[in-house]
Amino acid sequence: MEARVRRIFRFLEEAPDAIALLNGTEPHLDHTFFYATGIHGGLFEGCAALLRPDGGCHVLTSRLEADIAQAFGNPVEVFATKEERQAALQAHLDSVLSLGINGRELTYAGFQDLRAACPEAEIVDVSEAVVQARQVKDAKEVETLRRACAIAVEAWEELLPYIQVGRSESEIAAELSYLMQQKGASGPSFRSIVASGPNSALPHYETADRRVQDGDFLLMDFGALYRGYASDVTRTVVVGRAGRKQRRIHEVVLDAQQAALAAMKPGVDGREVHLAAQRVIDATEFKDRFTHGLGHSIGLAVHDGVAMRASVSLPLEEGMALTVEPGVYLPGYGGVRIEDDVLVTAEGVEVLTPATRELLEI
Amino acid sequence: MEARVRRIFRFLEEAPDAIALLNGTEPHLDHTFFYATGIHGGLFEGCAALLRPDGGCHVLTSRLEADIAQAFGNPVEVFATKEERQAALQAHLDSVLSLGINGRELTYAGFQDLRAACPEAEIVDVSEAVVQARQVKDAKEVETLRRACAIAVEAWEELLPYIQVGRSESEIAAELSYLMQQKGASGPSFRSIVASGPNSALPHYETADRRVQDGDFLLMDFGALYRGYASDVTRTVVVGRAGRKQRRIHEVVLDAQQAALAAMKPGVDGREVHLAAQRVIDATEFKDRFTHGLGHSIGLAVHDGVAMRASVSLPLEEGMALTVEPGVYLPGYGGVRIEDDVLVTAEGVEVLTPATRELLEI
Repeated sequence: MEARVRRIFRFLEEAPDAIALLNGTEPHLDHTFFYATGIHGGLFEGCAALLRPDGGCHVLTSRLEADIAQAFGNPVEVFATKEERQAALQAHLDSVLSLGINGRELTYAGFQDLRAACPEAEIVDVSEAVVQARQVKDAKEVETLRRACAIAVEAWEELLPYIQVGRSESEIAAELSYLMQQKGASGPSFRSIVASGPNSALPHYETADRRVQDGDFLLMDFGALYRGYASDVTRTVVVGRAGRKQRRIHEVVLDAQQAALAAMKPGVDGREVHLAAQRVIDATEFKDRFTHGLGHSIGLAVHDGVAMRASVSLPLEEGMALTVEPGVYLPGYGGVRIEDDVLVTAEGVEVLTPATRELLEI
Repeated sequence: MEARVRRIFRFLEEAPDAIALLNGTEPHLDHTFFYATGIHGGLFEGCAALLRPDGGCHVLTSRLEADIAQAFGNPVEVFATKEERQAALQAHLDSVLSLGINGRELTYAGFQDLRAACPEAEIVDVSEAVVQARQVKDAKEVETLRRACAIAVEAWEELLPYIQVGRSESEIAAELSYLMQQKGASGPSFRSIVASGPNSALPHYETADRRVQDGDFLLMDFGALYRGYASDVTRTVVVGRAGRKQRRIHEVVLDAQQAALAAMKPGVDGREVHLAAQRVIDATEFKDRFTHGLGHSIGLAVHDGVAMRASVSLPLEEGMALTVEPGVYLPGYGGVRIEDDVLVTAEGVEVLTPATRELLEI
């Protein structure tokens, strides 16, 4: 993927002679390996991609993945053992004076292997440039992400009739995964959070066996993985009739999300977008109950490198893909989060996950 | 988990003053963080565990995961920002003269953060000791792994009637995930491989939309994730009536697996076990068609650190959990793999995945 490789180098003031992306053992794989090579499928443990400033991208692959690697149009070299891979790295990097590495996704052990392959070269951590390059999605990425988002929404809409008093959180999560896979997802993009009743007050709750009760909040945070790209959606519904307090929490969170969406466009700082949502919540009786950042970039990773939150600056650009997910959490009672995936456009945002945001009573 | 922390230090000739396990962003999390703390659930991005030679285990967690962290009995410190975490690391590591890191699961960026927290300390990569400590499973781990294995087997047995001519690989994979989650898995332990017909000849095939045809091999490689522990099973069936060649391939692979299982007991080298299986295959018309290692350890990771293959030595020990998965692959035609998870016992092995290994015609 010549354009992507060039794009990474464009964010570097001083371009190193090469950038090496080296995978560890699952799950310690570098998403940027898949970004730069365009490969999807396979595992590619211990495999490497060597990028050059002219857009060149050379893949070193184990025999296990050779067939897959060859299908994506990059020059491919196959190794049988780690020693052979190490020799190939050395052959390629021998004359390199400066080598870029992706420090956020490379393991320390992988770093040592690269170090050994070119002991004299200056090593530069280019992970910041990698993150920047990956933030603005190209047409192919948008198309893939769109599908990942559509699958999640369609699956959730089909899930609704399955939600009933007495179903367990795990059962609902299983059904949701099933529906996403049926629609073409290779799997969920992360372990779905299905949190009922008071469990909905824990933003990172681990789905368990609690059975849904009448009057519960049911918070579902989930996404589809499609050709390596991740969507990430949350909806919170009420099982049975919603009480006044439940309606009020949901209304406040929805207002906060609307305020955030309305604030987003190229040039605006993500921090301001976060604050727009937070101000809405903090002006209500739920002050200080929005306890996490507003959103994060999505792409090959669910958390794709940057975030919109109070503590960091992120100037928005056309082509960025981000989640917008305010929430209000009342410990012991329950919580509401509403999360959509959006693409920043020239004038504002396009919502990629157009599932209803009304408070559903199921 | 004092005993586990002590166990890690036991494999170090010179114990560092502390070992720091630091998570990056999903999926760059250190499984050993979960091993040492005993925590399951939550995400724990950017969180750390500080281990001491006396078995002490101190958890630094973000607010998002504080509730979960506190449920597991370790001392817990909560940080709100990365800067706060960095300050906490510094406070804990200030007086440390030598610091152990887990180089195979720590990112290079995480290494830089630890380096900054104790700029004077000697840094030692203890990942080899970590791998060794994690190889022999304790009673709690065996219990959890047993359940992960049982779920996979039960789900596969229930899947069989669903396999029919015309079903797509993806549909079959979705159904299998669903059945595993219904039985209590938090999800599949890796993206299931469902490979039909000629696709079964690709060991790391990416499940796609091919529909099962009469006479196809159908290779299913899958596992359940249960409380963080991963099982990993493969069965290959024939859809319709098996032909002579299909029967023959299956028979050879099964013979190879039997030879391997019979060879396993404490003290035997995993390399010899691999060779026992390979010899069976190489004595047939399928010489050289077994193109990968015989197996790998399982636990908190699907590939948990060590392997049985021709190129490495691995003396087996009681309490190790390993896959045994010979295969024969004929490009363009198809392949068979039979994979079980076993626990090394005092006398041999216990198979944790007792699904039938007969060649099923479905």
